[in-house]
Amino acid sequence: MTQIARESLIVQKFGGTSVGSIERIEAVAKRVMKAKTEGHQLVVVVSAMSGETNRLLGLAQQVDAVPAARELDVLLSAGEQVSMALLAMMLNKMGQPAVSLTGWQAGIETDSMFNDASITHIDPRPIQQLLAQDKVVIVAGFQGMSDEREITTLGRGGSDTTAVALAGALHANECQIFTDVDGVYTCDPRIEPEARRLDVIHFDDMTSMARNGAKVLQLQSVEHARENGVPLRVLSSFEDGDGTLVSFDSHVSAEVVGVALKSQQTQLEVALPIAELQDQLNLFGVSCWCQPTTANTTQLVTANEQLARLELVLAGKMRPLAGVATLSLVGNGVAALVEPVCAVLAKAGIQVQQHTCSTHCLSLLVSDSDQQLAVNIVHKRFVVETESLDNRPLLAVS
Amino acid sequence: MTQIARESLIVQKFGGTSVGSIERIEAVAKRVMKAKTEGHQLVVVVSAMSGETNRLLGLAQQVDAVPAARELDVLLSAGEQVSMALLAMMLNKMGQPAVSLTGWQAGIETDSMFNDASITHIDPRPIQQLLAQDKVVIVAGFQGMSDEREITTLGRGGSDTTAVALAGALHANECQIFTDVDGVYTCDPRIEPEARRLDVIHFDDMTSMARNGAKVLQLQSVEHARENGVPLRVLSSFEDGDGTLVSFDSHVSAEVVGVALKSQQTQLEVALPIAELQDQLNLFGVSCWCQPTTANTTQLVTANEQLARLELVLAGKMRPLAGVATLSLVGNGVAALVEPVCAVLAKAGIQVQQHTCSTHCLSLLVSDSDQQLAVNIVHKRFVVETESLDNRPLLAVS
Repeated sequence: MTQIARESLIVQKFGGTSVGSIERIEAVAKRVMKAKTEGHQLVVVVSAMSGETNRLLGLAQQVDAVPAARELDVLLSAGEQVSMALLAMMLNKMGQPAVSLTGWQAGIETDSMFNDASITHIDPRPIQQLLAQDKVVIVAGFQGMSDEREITTLGRGGSDTTAVALAGALHANECQIFTDVDGVYTCDPRIEPEARRLDVIHFDDMTSMARNGAKVLQLQSVEHARENGVPLRVLSSFEDGDGTLVSFDSHVSAEVVGVALKSQQTQLEVALPIAELQDQLNLFGVSCWCQPTTANTTQLVTANEQLARLELVLAGKMRPLAGVATLSLVGNGVAALVEPVCAVLAKAGIQVQQHTCSTHCLSLLVSDSDQQLAVNIVHKRFVVETESLDNRPLLAVS
Repeated sequence: MTQIARESLIVQKFGGTSVGSIERIEAVAKRVMKAKTEGHQLVVVVSAMSGETNRLLGLAQQVDAVPAARELDVLLSAGEQVSMALLAMMLNKMGQPAVSLTGWQAGIETDSMFNDASITHIDPRPIQQLLAQDKVVIVAGFQGMSDEREITTLGRGGSDTTAVALAGALHANECQIFTDVDGVYTCDPRIEPEARRLDVIHFDDMTSMARNGAKVLQLQSVEHARENGVPLRVLSSFEDGDGTLVSFDSHVSAEVVGVALKSQQTQLEVALPIAELQDQLNLFGVSCWCQPTTANTTQLVTANEQLARLELVLAGKMRPLAGVATLSLVGNGVAALVEPVCAVLAKAGIQVQQHTCSTHCLSLLVSDSDQQLAVNIVHKRFVVETESLDNRPLLAVS
């Protein structure tokens, strides 16, 4: 139903675990062969073999606790060079001509921000020439070249970014992200056992899910794919299946598409008026959920990993109140659900401390001790039971 | 006495053992710093960390017994990328600005012969620009880029070749090869305990030594340095010292500069006239020492490692006679020594089966069981005792 058209150009991305051993590389090669046999053109983006980036980082840190940024990129980029060459060898051995390209060979141009570079332009010609020769093109994820012919590496989620950017530049029909889960779920299955895989999800909903704690796709990649109009598909590296298609054509009419959870957060009280606080936070690039409590004090919620940084900015002016979590309902109809959601949680003794609402997302702040139960209740009542009532066929498919 | 002029441009090359661990890389960095502090400009060529090339080859061989040649070069070239980045980090940490360059970044252009490429041209500008900024430039040995922007690796001794070629292109004052011995000896010290290090050796003599079994320098690098007029210096990575300078200015007047030994050879009889045999050998690129025995049979001497290949070429026509070794006396005056050398060996019961002589080299074929004694006698009589008689100061220096 969401099958891709024949003779499409597909960009596939495999992460470090997917190419973590020779056996895994062989499995990836078979998957690539299968798509090639179905008549598609294939560009395959790979990360470094799992463990390799850490090994290289370990060597660098033996030299210097804060290694020279330029040289760190030279070092780390060697990691993908190994995995891409091994995958190309494997495909050639299987009889499928394949060629591996580093970032600079693949025409991936970036700015000069070492360790956290952004792709500025992709020259599609090197890859197009190889595709025209019916070759599978393997491309190193996570790396590029600056105007000054320097090797650069991209920031977090770098290989996903490479795949999405290549898909955009090559006008690919689909960008497939292979990962350790078999798709996007209505909720993280590790938290919510009744979560079910979605066949399709709209870019709007996926963006909200990613922004609010869903880890299956990096927010940056989703936004990039959306801007470039490239349908994204999340698939399992380890199992067959159609995964989840992220596109503009989702026909799902459910009020609530999914539930996302951002845990490991802290609520603080800061002895500053909200306007002044927000100025300071913007200056330091720290993003928080703020709310005035008095004229001169503000409550804010931030990720625990930001606390040390905040301490520097707000020296002496902040006081931690409690561990909290943000639970978000994502979907077209969530704006109308504020009251019923709060009511069903209150019935279970869970207090919603704050909430914010946009067209696609209703976020609720709860105590961290309530988060698990809150997710279970909300997911059951507004995702599972609504589906049953609607009697929609999706449940049978999952 | 053989010190290099101040403010020279020096190319230093460190092999895999010299950069085999973080501690060793630190020692290399200190050596580089020392030369920099003395006022020189430095270009440093490094191999992959020892063991790394074998690790990568092992991965490739798990994929395919004969991996795709292009991809093998992509894979192996990652090895130097790691060592060069770590060395650059170390220098930066020590306060010496340093930048590492891959083969393609350093302007090293090669032909397209994957796994055994030859350098066709070096664009000196990228390195010159960095030197002008007073940076130490680290360059990946063993690799380059073809006209088609493909990553290539050079053949055997590749990093030495890179260093010598860079020294030529940059008009360096000296190319220093750091290795596990502290210079060129009058004979391999593992065979001849009385061998002594030479302060200087003429390119003519060094070429003959390398061609006839001395392993301290690859023949190709010596020839390349000679063609480019680049003085070579062999130094120990592990100890201080001036090493041995290979140049055109050697003032050594000794009749015999050194003694080289090529062991692991076999003498064969082949049922073919010499002309026909040589045609066949040339066709297959096998080089041998040939001598007709009858009109239709030829005796030849070849390295044992060539035997399997010869067997293919001369199927059924060859018969091994004995294990042999070639002992070569190298120096200006060796042509006059045929008779005294044979006489002194005969006195010790050693028969010289064949000999050939050129202006710089007298080579003798002896049984492999005689090789050790033959070297000791010849070295003692024609190197050590001649020096004593001449009462030349070199002996006191060594």
